[in-house]
Amino acid sequence: MRRIMLTLEYDGTGFCGWQLQPDDRTGQAVLEEAMAQVTGARSRVHAASRTDSGVHAEGQVAHVDTDSALPAGRLLRALNYWLPDDISVIDAREVGEDFHARFGAASKLYRYRILRSRSPRPLRDRFAFRVWRELDVPAMQECAALLTGTHDFTSFASEHSEVENHERTVLRSELIEDGDELHYMVRADGFLYNMVRIAVGTLLEVGYGNMTVEEFAGALSARDRNAAGPTARARGLTLLAVEYPNDPRSAPLREPRDAE
Amino acid sequence: MRRIMLTLEYDGTGFCGWQLQPDDRTGQAVLEEAMAQVTGARSRVHAASRTDSGVHAEGQVAHVDTDSALPAGRLLRALNYWLPDDISVIDAREVGEDFHARFGAASKLYRYRILRSRSPRPLRDRFAFRVWRELDVPAMQECAALLTGTHDFTSFASEHSEVENHERTVLRSELIEDGDELHYMVRADGFLYNMVRIAVGTLLEVGYGNMTVEEFAGALSARDRNAAGPTARARGLTLLAVEYPNDPRSAPLREPRDAE
Repeated sequence: MRRIMLTLEYDGTGFCGWQLQPDDRTGQAVLEEAMAQVTGARSRVHAASRTDSGVHAEGQVAHVDTDSALPAGRLLRALNYWLPDDISVIDAREVGEDFHARFGAASKLYRYRILRSRSPRPLRDRFAFRVWRELDVPAMQECAALLTGTHDFTSFASEHSEVENHERTVLRSELIEDGDELHYMVRADGFLYNMVRIAVGTLLEVGYGNMTVEEFAGALSARDRNAAGPTARARGLTLLAVEYPNDPRSAPLREPRDAE
Repeated sequence: MRRIMLTLEYDGTGFCGWQLQPDDRTGQAVLEEAMAQVTGARSRVHAASRTDSGVHAEGQVAHVDTDSALPAGRLLRALNYWLPDDISVIDAREVGEDFHARFGAASKLYRYRILRSRSPRPLRDRFAFRVWRELDVPAMQECAALLTGTHDFTSFASEHSEVENHERTVLRSELIEDGDELHYMVRADGFLYNMVRIAVGTLLEVGYGNMTVEEFAGALSARDRNAAGPTARARGLTLLAVEYPNDPRSAPLREPRDAE
């Protein structure tokens, strides 16, 4: 049995999230089906993040155990042959049995794109949340910075969150202005259910002038979901990267990539 | 009768190009249909560029004459209400009768995105041409620069081109490296049919090592379509902007945009 680490990119629009669901098209279901086509055997895929319906990924990470003798580079191409157009394996490599995509992750990095436009923007609406009202960007930036550090994020967790411990360490929380877009960049050792989307929904309340910086700080310390803003739409959110200590991807590939 | 200047963004994937065709879904057809819905009358829309099937636009410009008394800002919102998700009016303003979207254009700016990746990239494949082979970028950049200036571009025109004069002035022709992408940026006073896509197809031949810089220069001076490379796929191409002398868009809007 060999363990393979997969890095995945997908357009979340057509998926009912990552996790296997009966009767729904999910990232896990589509990838496990491709694994079965390629290897002839059913395999369970374990991903770092169970991204929600509509959330995109540029760097989701998963691992899978297989008896297949295919070198990782060939497995990558075979999987991409079977996978539909909206999901792709962008890196595959053999890792040790001690590698676990989910439990081994040190941190994850997400980006939420806010697009300031009065009109629909067909080239970007699929990947950004569009806002036409004026936003108080400096106030939003001040609030974004407040989330850095170790906090109890109960206020920014969905009431459907099933974990007991709501303390997380946010390593980066920054709102960057990029032309007509705002990019909320957030890296943490872990995220509660809907945490990024609730953070963005609350930052937007500040941007609209519905909430002051002080009220935002109060919402964080309240440990009460009702103190924060609404959950921002999924389409603006992308899982950019999952980071590991001694990341296997920082090493050169063990096998030469065959010429094509 | 009032003349309205429209700036348009569209995802070209679902359109059989811009120009009206019997039985085909085109940008012009969809926009004229929306005009009819909004104003109750048929109007002819004149665009600066007849973009091909699959080509995108961030800044196509068109003009239309209408008897409707709707202020331009309201017309914009009404059109966007009727337009499908893959096309949008991003600016609308009343202009003088002497404004002509096509004949008045001083220059147009296109971008062609080349994405260097071995794997499919679901978040970008819709808007970029994907290449997995190594590319000789400095040689491509040298060749891109050779297109600047006034030349007879017969070698870079489709044999279906119907114009007589193949001389055009290229004001900018530059290949920019941006991470894993290459952006070919080209601005000219006019373009022949398929000119940008043939230029990119020929630059890629240089990048692959199939053609030297000298052969590229020879292809330009040959005035023979067969001397140049193949036509690159439409999906990588976006019409970024159409520029006008005394651009009406550089003036403040004549009407206050009503509060929403």
